[in-house]
Amino acid sequence: MAKSGHRTPRTALTCALSLAHGLPIGWCVLPITHFPFLLVSSAYNGCKRIHKEGKVMTFRSLYHTEVINDAGLNGHARVTLGGDFDVLTSSPLQDDPGTNPEQLLGLALATCLNATIEAEEGRRGLEHAAEVKVGVDMGKDTEGYQFFLDCQVRIPQVAEAEAQEILAKCERRCPVAKIVGSSQNVRVHLVKQFAF
Amino acid sequence: MAKSGHRTPRTALTCALSLAHGLPIGWCVLPITHFPFLLVSSAYNGCKRIHKEGKVMTFRSLYHTEVINDAGLNGHARVTLGGDFDVLTSSPLQDDPGTNPEQLLGLALATCLNATIEAEEGRRGLEHAAEVKVGVDMGKDTEGYQFFLDCQVRIPQVAEAEAQEILAKCERRCPVAKIVGSSQNVRVHLVKQFAF
Repeated sequence: MAKSGHRTPRTALTCALSLAHGLPIGWCVLPITHFPFLLVSSAYNGCKRIHKEGKVMTFRSLYHTEVINDAGLNGHARVTLGGDFDVLTSSPLQDDPGTNPEQLLGLALATCLNATIEAEEGRRGLEHAAEVKVGVDMGKDTEGYQFFLDCQVRIPQVAEAEAQEILAKCERRCPVAKIVGSSQNVRVHLVKQFAF
Repeated sequence: MAKSGHRTPRTALTCALSLAHGLPIGWCVLPITHFPFLLVSSAYNGCKRIHKEGKVMTFRSLYHTEVINDAGLNGHARVTLGGDFDVLTSSPLQDDPGTNPEQLLGLALATCLNATIEAEEGRRGLEHAAEVKVGVDMGKDTEGYQFFLDCQVRIPQVAEAEAQEILAKCERRCPVAKIVGSSQNVRVHLVKQFAF
């Protein structure tokens, strides 16, 4: 499972556009009307753009990877750039071997959040003892199905007040939590013992 | 990688609370002030609750799985209920073997969305030919890092207008797209050829 994605060197010269607009290094949101020529995603000066709903977000990419699913629910999904990770997938409602989107999404959140907590433990001179467990349920929706993620976090080596402080900070820092955390279907909370 | 999560039989008697409130089967959102006694997540009558920001969402679970990360960024994350799927993870910025949250999140979205499209292809009497590729970039943020997901979808066996119609419908139905799709960092779009 060797992995080697594209990495962009961090240089002060990249993302000049972000800096010129006085926004934080790493990203900026520009109304597309200001830059009507930025209609095609591409890299320039180590920066990339994402276009969504009439806005352009510019960011400096430090790492890039690509994955594909062509099989559908039953088959293999795999990394095509940045490694050779390959997973067999199957329906969660059948007993066929394989993982599924529920587990992949839960593993992404658990790993990203615990890695973020691990870094914060290090900054505080603490041993790494945190654990993140995610329970994922699938239920019907008015259209199709929906997932519910109950993300439970244990930080047992510190008192509860400090554990809450660490978790709050790490929810603000963790990339996956930033993307999924605003969903009404996702809850992240501190626990003494895991219970689903 | 045998998998057997908890599955709840679908019966008309479950989720009586949802039905009693005239909301769609599968979920309902109730102000917590109306049900101050519902403060602990647990299953009842095949239903579960998720508590978030003063609201309680009740849903009938058709499938339940659990995953854990205790190692942090470098080590193993694994399924603890619903299979034995285990992944080695490592930093995307190092050449150590293993996958990472970027790839796990991309695979979750690619697999879930393509499985949803596959079902729609079946409803329309089409062969399955759709492919979903996700490019994931990691960049800095004002706090920590952030991910950017460029989800490109090919539905090559139909004309563009029908492909756009299928994709729009499937974005509304796909559970992972529902959770991540509202993020400004995630874009889902139809393409003729993949290009990142």
